[in-house]
Amino acid sequence: MFSGILAGIKKNSTKQDLGLIFCEPAASAAALFTRNKVVAAPVIFGREQIKSGSVSAILVNSGNANCFTGEQGLENAKKCAQLTASHLKIPQEQVIVSSTGVIGQQLPMDKFESGIPDAVKALDEQGINDFATAILTTDLRTKIVEKDIMIDNQKITVLGIAKGSGMIRPDMATMLAFICTDAVISPENLKKTLSRANEKSFNRITVDGDTSTNDTVFALANGSSGVTVEHDASISIFQDALNEICLELAKKIVVDGEGATKLVQITVQGAKTDKDAYLAAEAIAHSPLVKTAINGEDPNWGRITAAAGRSGAQVDQDKMALYFNDTPLVLDGKWLGLEAENKTAQIMKGDEIFITLDLNLGDCSEYYFFCDFSEKYVQINADYRS
Amino acid sequence: MFSGILAGIKKNSTKQDLGLIFCEPAASAAALFTRNKVVAAPVIFGREQIKSGSVSAILVNSGNANCFTGEQGLENAKKCAQLTASHLKIPQEQVIVSSTGVIGQQLPMDKFESGIPDAVKALDEQGINDFATAILTTDLRTKIVEKDIMIDNQKITVLGIAKGSGMIRPDMATMLAFICTDAVISPENLKKTLSRANEKSFNRITVDGDTSTNDTVFALANGSSGVTVEHDASISIFQDALNEICLELAKKIVVDGEGATKLVQITVQGAKTDKDAYLAAEAIAHSPLVKTAINGEDPNWGRITAAAGRSGAQVDQDKMALYFNDTPLVLDGKWLGLEAENKTAQIMKGDEIFITLDLNLGDCSEYYFFCDFSEKYVQINADYRS
Repeated sequence: MFSGILAGIKKNSTKQDLGLIFCEPAASAAALFTRNKVVAAPVIFGREQIKSGSVSAILVNSGNANCFTGEQGLENAKKCAQLTASHLKIPQEQVIVSSTGVIGQQLPMDKFESGIPDAVKALDEQGINDFATAILTTDLRTKIVEKDIMIDNQKITVLGIAKGSGMIRPDMATMLAFICTDAVISPENLKKTLSRANEKSFNRITVDGDTSTNDTVFALANGSSGVTVEHDASISIFQDALNEICLELAKKIVVDGEGATKLVQITVQGAKTDKDAYLAAEAIAHSPLVKTAINGEDPNWGRITAAAGRSGAQVDQDKMALYFNDTPLVLDGKWLGLEAENKTAQIMKGDEIFITLDLNLGDCSEYYFFCDFSEKYVQINADYRS
Repeated sequence: MFSGILAGIKKNSTKQDLGLIFCEPAASAAALFTRNKVVAAPVIFGREQIKSGSVSAILVNSGNANCFTGEQGLENAKKCAQLTASHLKIPQEQVIVSSTGVIGQQLPMDKFESGIPDAVKALDEQGINDFATAILTTDLRTKIVEKDIMIDNQKITVLGIAKGSGMIRPDMATMLAFICTDAVISPENLKKTLSRANEKSFNRITVDGDTSTNDTVFALANGSSGVTVEHDASISIFQDALNEICLELAKKIVVDGEGATKLVQITVQGAKTDKDAYLAAEAIAHSPLVKTAINGEDPNWGRITAAAGRSGAQVDQDKMALYFNDTPLVLDGKWLGLEAENKTAQIMKGDEIFITLDLNLGDCSEYYFFCDFSEKYVQINADYRS
């Protein structure tokens, strides 16, 4: 069951800012936390709480990240879990909290004291949209993906909800994702499949390259379908669904990136090693020169190949080929001329662009999703106090 | 002797675009080339030419980078060196060429055939400004630094000229620097001192994090002062001068960064290792969130500490201290409150800002110079075709 209510945590907001997920009995649970060494209080607290692999409720607030808040912040995170547990009449060990928003300020505990009972009362099977709205910050859209899969001729549902838009106003990027399924699966297998899905989805997107102090991906499996995911074949089906859902959510985050006008997939193929392919794709996806060129609808092959050149990947400029939606612009390291340039410039006018860089040195490939860098991105992120 | 003439290499330009440095007899020479694996023809050619350690002339053009131009591009670079050598009546082995500008197009050789004799004729001891102008692309200002030093009570002059503004319109960042001195110094010692100076100057700046295919730093020592730089004490004096000149030029490049409104020095001190200090400083200097906050004159300590947190450096958020021009905003990982925030916000209004992050974990420190990210940066780099 889900809820999302207006607790008044965000200043002057008329939108929901406190969300709750509740499942009974307790779900098999897994979580992946930010790799940033500066972490928020709910991440410190969550790392402990998740160890049991059993979670009944996740309380999520937007508007305040509870980061750089010291001992007091950690106490407040615990207090939120206590309040949630007592109103839900469940053990406190089964509650996890998550926060996103401004950093350096203590949580407004009075808003939580009044908001948590309201969030518990509002719990509803149909509350998904309210929850998805309550966790948003600068996001323009809610991000929800659902998928049914069949295992041993029985249906399992996997639902994913995410937020993230490059950065939390006014401070930093936070990505949160919640995957809920009715499958019966052990915390270990849930963690394993979640990690794999995460690696090729949330770890393959960038809006601005900054990692937040609060980034977290949660998975809860409440087992209500009665369908067990345990043997290799069923895990493989479940993995595919999880991969798809995480990738869809990840792409939704990029599309909703601050100031973003285009979704771009860069695929680097023909690399000698996976690492080379990854390095080149990552460098291209993060290059401000590439991102501004895409904003200008310019198939700027010089910037793309140069970013690959400085990435650390092994490259041979005379072997490189570059394609925009399958249309070649560079082959054997040579620019194909004005006609090809005009064709690819036309492709750049689209909302979704597929760029492929073939290094022609091996069989390895990797991809990355990213968005363009616009004047609006700078506006959003420079105008903190105005 | 220097010259800078209008050869017509840049389309529709009324400014100089072909520069020449000439010294007779041949100078002791050293050069450092881009670490990008995609490199321009003059870099491939230059790496060979510099091996002898003896150079008489450097021909530099702006408006065309001679990159991604294949065999033909390499032939053209050689042809430029030949033409220069024949007009100067010197061996071709003593000529180096350097290019910056658009990539993917062949050099307009007719312009070089008519321009090179003009550049030779225009050579003059007073031609420094013309040369410094001829090598510019999107730069708004010439970049010249000169310094006299005394070794064994005798004067040596060191002159530095650079270009670079984040990116060559319309394609990519190129930084070129030329250091000329009348000292008597071996190519080996020149290379050694140049490498050290480069490490702490041109390698410690960023406008947008992209490395070009043409980046090169040259040093020429023609020995005309008759003063020898050989023993440790004299090398140390020479090194100091070189460090200062390179750092000054590097800072001028950042100040002239595309769309830049502020020059920022981030110093990370109290790190456990030099590498940790470097990683944290580099991550902060490249973070779009930090750079846009600085554009908005916002002392956004959350973004700065979070960038350090994701940098790979060892950090402990409860030990961090952060200062803006010596005014603390965070101590022991705690934000000092509104009064400190207002004071630092005032500091952010300046043109030059010194930010110090103290990790309080050790004795190592590193710095990085960078500029802000403005809407104008995006405008300049998105509007390639307009």
